[in-house]
Amino acid sequence: MTKFRQLLGPLVAVLGAAAGPAFGAAPEIVVDEMRTQYQKIRVVKLAGGLERPWAVAFLPDGGYLVTERPGRLQLVRDGARTEIGGLPEITAIRQGGLLDVSLHPEFERSPWVYLSYAKGGEGGTALALGRGRLEGDRLAGFEEIFVQDRFSVPGRHYGSRIAWLPDGTLLLSIGDRGAEPARAQDLGDHAGKLLRLNADGSVPADNPFVGREGAQPEIWSLGHRNIQGLVVGPGADVIWATEHGPRGGDELNRIEPALNYGWPIVSRARQYGDESPYGEARRREGFEDPVYEFLPTLAPSGLALVTTDRFPAWRGNLLAGGLVAERIRRVVLEDGEVVHEEELLLGVVGRIRDVREGPEGLIYVLSDTADGGLYRIEPVD
Amino acid sequence: MTKFRQLLGPLVAVLGAAAGPAFGAAPEIVVDEMRTQYQKIRVVKLAGGLERPWAVAFLPDGGYLVTERPGRLQLVRDGARTEIGGLPEITAIRQGGLLDVSLHPEFERSPWVYLSYAKGGEGGTALALGRGRLEGDRLAGFEEIFVQDRFSVPGRHYGSRIAWLPDGTLLLSIGDRGAEPARAQDLGDHAGKLLRLNADGSVPADNPFVGREGAQPEIWSLGHRNIQGLVVGPGADVIWATEHGPRGGDELNRIEPALNYGWPIVSRARQYGDESPYGEARRREGFEDPVYEFLPTLAPSGLALVTTDRFPAWRGNLLAGGLVAERIRRVVLEDGEVVHEEELLLGVVGRIRDVREGPEGLIYVLSDTADGGLYRIEPVD
Repeated sequence: MTKFRQLLGPLVAVLGAAAGPAFGAAPEIVVDEMRTQYQKIRVVKLAGGLERPWAVAFLPDGGYLVTERPGRLQLVRDGARTEIGGLPEITAIRQGGLLDVSLHPEFERSPWVYLSYAKGGEGGTALALGRGRLEGDRLAGFEEIFVQDRFSVPGRHYGSRIAWLPDGTLLLSIGDRGAEPARAQDLGDHAGKLLRLNADGSVPADNPFVGREGAQPEIWSLGHRNIQGLVVGPGADVIWATEHGPRGGDELNRIEPALNYGWPIVSRARQYGDESPYGEARRREGFEDPVYEFLPTLAPSGLALVTTDRFPAWRGNLLAGGLVAERIRRVVLEDGEVVHEEELLLGVVGRIRDVREGPEGLIYVLSDTADGGLYRIEPVD
Repeated sequence: MTKFRQLLGPLVAVLGAAAGPAFGAAPEIVVDEMRTQYQKIRVVKLAGGLERPWAVAFLPDGGYLVTERPGRLQLVRDGARTEIGGLPEITAIRQGGLLDVSLHPEFERSPWVYLSYAKGGEGGTALALGRGRLEGDRLAGFEEIFVQDRFSVPGRHYGSRIAWLPDGTLLLSIGDRGAEPARAQDLGDHAGKLLRLNADGSVPADNPFVGREGAQPEIWSLGHRNIQGLVVGPGADVIWATEHGPRGGDELNRIEPALNYGWPIVSRARQYGDESPYGEARRREGFEDPVYEFLPTLAPSGLALVTTDRFPAWRGNLLAGGLVAERIRRVVLEDGEVVHEEELLLGVVGRIRDVREGPEGLIYVLSDTADGGLYRIEPVD
């Protein structure tokens, strides 16, 4: 995909120049009107100059909280930004640093801001989850509420997406951490899992492996390489997750508790070197087949579910962002099967790190570059 | 995909300018070196200024025969072109005109050039197949050896790819002709079928529907909307075909004689208007499931099989060109299943009409524009 970046680089510059204001200024119309299969859209850049932005959350007053992977949390409001203080110690190494941000579902009453991040310790880093109350430009009383059970190298595959279930618990993904894929199959290890926690970090009593000897009680599902897209709905028990394969094997899964999604034993992925199969089998009883494999490679990042009628033809669709693919894939589901797809934003913003539906139904995108941006997709009538 | 063309248009111009010679001159290096997953490639433009080129065939002396849909056959050799005379009357209307070109498999002994084309008649057009002997810059003794049984409007879905089987018979695809999809299910109608003919246009006695009352004896398989990619191998009985769905439903099929590939009853396609399902079911017993559905939309055109070691990592792969998608999808098969894909040439040449492996193992591409080009993909060591 290097060739793709080579090719699209100059293009984005051309568009930026054509749009009027200098590239980097914000807000700025990046694409005034773009036709898609059912929906004309506009793309607006709300903020630029973000260093490897990883996630965005929406404040009730219209502000955006954006994490920058090197370890900063930015409040973007009316085109200006304020760095938020009161963060924990964060280890920015390789894929690690400050990662996801998510507000407590009843934020106006409980103004907790949740952050996932890489924490340094003996043996490397671990994924941690913490929360602080947003007070002005600070997180007050930040507390670490979960730390992965093992610190390891080499600083890859943190997973780290946060999503809330309607019962007030939260899901947190952790990747296999890159060096020992088999950790994803070990119930005694948090790596390569989707976890479920109470809002204070404690373990819900009805988690599927609670009480099983040797199992980490936070585990909700296992056999995941690196979930970096996670969204709940429609309906209380529907969890969609996208995860990275090494080469191929980028999966969309519907997550059910206690199930094993296969990595690294059962996988559709291929070896980087010679394209030979990865793992023991492409499918096997006792392991969940993905709902879908994204081909060609997507390198899935943020995942959004379209829940409103702001983009009427997209309602109920998943929007899966792609790092390597530098596009969004609009995924149409019917009876649990992917029946149609459309590419969006190909060549417009570069590598995509996060895709979210805002509270007003518009779609927000973060680009994953050293000079990253926060973009909004708006319908054009 | 309109947005895609909008975006990529300026890019191609930029590259053309950067490459040195004026765009349109040939031969010209379009991309000097492009990294792909396993193979560095160069893209060279061998000829420009071709009007809606549709197909390319390779002469033993190194020349290329290129059809132009308006009704011309060009001989391209050493950067110069010569229009070949002696063609039949051809009706250029909508998707119709001069379409595929293919040489007799023993061309040096039997210098027949086969052409598929739209032929006008009462009621509209029909797909015809004919052949003439290449003598200098003329086709001598051109004879029509097959004409579709019914002339119809509106000039769409001709199919029309030609491929040779190792037994010396040829396959010819015919689309459903656009107005009455149900024709693809009618054994009494050539439309929506893959046909098998002897080299002189007569019917092979071992065709599967020979002797069945009311059936056209040329039929090899049925239920096809519009096969425009067709290649044989590896092995004598392996036939790969790509066909267009209306929206989604772009299929890769492995063709077996007498089987029904479903269109328009069983299809993965969606309606253009509201994305609702097309046809009665996505799968049904008695109808062949495609090996693969290309998502997002490809609009499949030419199809090549990589048979040599010129691109070692691609050997055995299919290269499926795309009109709407403006790229090639490299398709890796294992045990009859698509296990990996890679995008090639995204944004480099625009809409792709044909993809072929040349006799020396290099890959040739035609771009589908009013100022189309013949391109060659070469490995860079």
